[in-house]
Amino acid sequence: MELAGYSCAVAIAKCYPVEAMTKDNHAVLVCCGPGNNGGNGLVCARHLKMFGYKPTIFYPKRPSKPLFDALYQQCEGMDIPVLSFFPSEAHLITDSYNFVVDALFGINFKGPVRPEFEPVIETLKKVESPICSIDVPSGWDIEKGDANGLQPELLISLTAPKLCAHLFKGKHHYLGGRFVPRTLEQKYELNLPPYPGTDCVVELKDTQEDGKA
Amino acid sequence: MELAGYSCAVAIAKCYPVEAMTKDNHAVLVCCGPGNNGGNGLVCARHLKMFGYKPTIFYPKRPSKPLFDALYQQCEGMDIPVLSFFPSEAHLITDSYNFVVDALFGINFKGPVRPEFEPVIETLKKVESPICSIDVPSGWDIEKGDANGLQPELLISLTAPKLCAHLFKGKHHYLGGRFVPRTLEQKYELNLPPYPGTDCVVELKDTQEDGKA
Repeated sequence: MELAGYSCAVAIAKCYPVEAMTKDNHAVLVCCGPGNNGGNGLVCARHLKMFGYKPTIFYPKRPSKPLFDALYQQCEGMDIPVLSFFPSEAHLITDSYNFVVDALFGINFKGPVRPEFEPVIETLKKVESPICSIDVPSGWDIEKGDANGLQPELLISLTAPKLCAHLFKGKHHYLGGRFVPRTLEQKYELNLPPYPGTDCVVELKDTQEDGKA
Repeated sequence: MELAGYSCAVAIAKCYPVEAMTKDNHAVLVCCGPGNNGGNGLVCARHLKMFGYKPTIFYPKRPSKPLFDALYQQCEGMDIPVLSFFPSEAHLITDSYNFVVDALFGINFKGPVRPEFEPVIETLKKVESPICSIDVPSGWDIEKGDANGLQPELLISLTAPKLCAHLFKGKHHYLGGRFVPRTLEQKYELNLPPYPGTDCVVELKDTQEDGKA
């Protein structure tokens, strides 16, 4: 999770360099869900802060597990503020944040979206700042996606693109989380692209490389 | 530990690129001690494998803790072989391995070296392949070093250089483990150099930057 979140922050920084941010002293919003994807979001927020962004976290449903407590405390230790409620108007988010990290739901998501997260996703759909989804755009079926759902501008697939990545129409698709042993990769015929040098992310430019897992 | 070990592998790959390795299909030796520094070594070995090296681990004393069991299993899952005994002749190591990662003892080390590790360090002192020490050259006093001890060619200081880093005379000094919040850095006046962009390591070239912590 530490490397996954770090690779998300690296991919985001490649697409939206901190120097190019125009709103409110590099402000960005990181929306964290109740499961592992939320944990990735917390780690990502921490590294974004390291990289010079000014992240704010929205984390309404925290699992009571030591790992997530620790990740949350690390964010607190870095003075990353937490939104106590989600802005109901999309334009408030558009106006305040350079981009939004969507770490609400990931690979374990089985629809429908819980009632408390429905308005969040509906609002995010109207936000005009770029949305950066971690692993799976939140609300999407892992295989079939969601034609009426969230349409992120950046998707960071972790370990391997999920089937629904075929349906991603955004600008940037990265693969992160460089931790698949070659033997597993061959066993499951993941056909992952080679990571350049010691990089922890690789851009997926060719649609042939997408959605094989 | 995951990021610390990753940053060690990145620093090593910068100093000793995999393409430049001449011995036995990129073979390298990673010596892991009984504590946290050994854990960093296990993570480092895994990422070195990802980067195309052929690591072998020496890990004679494994703590019975779930974290270290998991790190060890991840290495096994990547088919990283484990030496069951340490070669007694330094030239056997020099001949077989392009470099040796020293992850035996780190910041918590209090001398003297345990009897079972003494011959290991004595042998490593005679090895002619470069030694890459993680955080602290093994056997060194954290403040006073060890003039007669191991003299690594690469030192990767984690979080902040330790006092003994003043006494490091090797070729390459890197700082890794980019996880000190700015507030802590200021509180303890660590004077850490800025990491470039999203990099997880930074080379310390100026001796003024060394050994401030």
